[in-house]
Amino acid sequence: MDQSGPAIVLVAPQLAENIGTSARAMANFGLADLRLVTPRDGWPSDKARAAASRADHVIDRARVFASPEAAVADLNLVIATTARGRDIGKRVVGPREAATMIRAAEEGGQRAGILFGREKSGLTNDEVALADIILTFPVDPAFSSLNIAQAVLLVAYEYRRAAFDNERAGLAFDDPVGPQASKHDLVGLFGHLEGALDRTGFFRPAERRPSMVLSLRAMLQRGRFTEQEVRTLRGVIAAFERHLPPPRDPSGSADDD
Amino acid sequence: MDQSGPAIVLVAPQLAENIGTSARAMANFGLADLRLVTPRDGWPSDKARAAASRADHVIDRARVFASPEAAVADLNLVIATTARGRDIGKRVVGPREAATMIRAAEEGGQRAGILFGREKSGLTNDEVALADIILTFPVDPAFSSLNIAQAVLLVAYEYRRAAFDNERAGLAFDDPVGPQASKHDLVGLFGHLEGALDRTGFFRPAERRPSMVLSLRAMLQRGRFTEQEVRTLRGVIAAFERHLPPPRDPSGSADDD
Repeated sequence: MDQSGPAIVLVAPQLAENIGTSARAMANFGLADLRLVTPRDGWPSDKARAAASRADHVIDRARVFASPEAAVADLNLVIATTARGRDIGKRVVGPREAATMIRAAEEGGQRAGILFGREKSGLTNDEVALADIILTFPVDPAFSSLNIAQAVLLVAYEYRRAAFDNERAGLAFDDPVGPQASKHDLVGLFGHLEGALDRTGFFRPAERRPSMVLSLRAMLQRGRFTEQEVRTLRGVIAAFERHLPPPRDPSGSADDD
Repeated sequence: MDQSGPAIVLVAPQLAENIGTSARAMANFGLADLRLVTPRDGWPSDKARAAASRADHVIDRARVFASPEAAVADLNLVIATTARGRDIGKRVVGPREAATMIRAAEEGGQRAGILFGREKSGLTNDEVALADIILTFPVDPAFSSLNIAQAVLLVAYEYRRAAFDNERAGLAFDDPVGPQASKHDLVGLFGHLEGALDRTGFFRPAERRPSMVLSLRAMLQRGRFTEQEVRTLRGVIAAFERHLPPPRDPSGSADDD
């Protein structure tokens, strides 16, 4: 089974740069099957390669077709992207739902592809008629013109994203925050801080001490510190503590400055 | 309440074209608050306007800032986009989770913004340190370099897309007690703590100071403190500070105990 994901079919693209930036967007999210229907500026294209920013594996593998029909001939599920409604009785989905449908088709051993239209005029009705469903984007209706490479990017992103139920699993690197410190460690930190603050006279008047302690503990707990971070904060407290006067008899006055 | 969505903050963008294509991507998904930190080719820029393909309302409203700190000063939730892991103890999310967090912050009357780095080198560690969380994309690790406008597009898309999700339950972070403090307040807190720690000799050896400062800022930022909590923590620092020796000549020895 082909692991390259859905085919990206650019129908009569006018600018070679847009082919290149589309190839780059595909590569960013792991797609590799680029198909070009009668590109206006010919193929191969140095401009396209330059704009692809080293997505050479996509550019090298790109194939040119004489018609949209030829470009989608081997596909089972064809999706047409359009910026405006077409009254041709097809189902309309967004990129997320389209990605789910493509994944489902692939899991069934089928091949999917997405048609993208010309920069100026999009796809013709005849081209849209080749598709099983219509894909459109949740753009601001007041500014709905998406660059082709950006439309390709959104589709490729959602396709890759659909592979991961948990978004964290697909990220390029891991969350570096380690496991949270134990409550035992946290209580030790709180006791250390509060003991040092007692020596500074911070908790005044004395009857407010319990509520002040609660607030401090609540805010410090929200950071969900790791063990190492608790050690660092205890180092901070110890640095200050070395300059404090010696502990007082707790029954004595707190007036120490 | 501002209806323009999160601020898009481009830090030291090198190419005016990328500013323009980012503005277009913002307009496609209804964002309007573009902020530029020291754009290399100056501002305003005809090249940027041309590349924006008539997203003139975004270009006209763009503001230039002298530093990333100034650009995020009025924001409560700051998200840094990075392509590689940073070992500075911040939570890492994908664009979908980030969009949910931004929507939640906005519903609480807060303002959010996303930092995007230089074309070649991204954000510095100090710039990432300004953020509450790190955003990365589920790209193919073998081809992970996203164009800036495409990164902006994915964030804007997920932000707009999140408005149509009805599965808002299970938010990734706790309901804050009150609105989160501004970055201005947090930077003041960090400066206060670090200045006091300098007087204790905590940052030793001196060459480790920058990484120690980054760790402290990362862990303190995770608590998403309110304004009142920042005031409380500054009170804690002041209580310790009263017992410290007077500030030293910074060129002198740090041996103070």
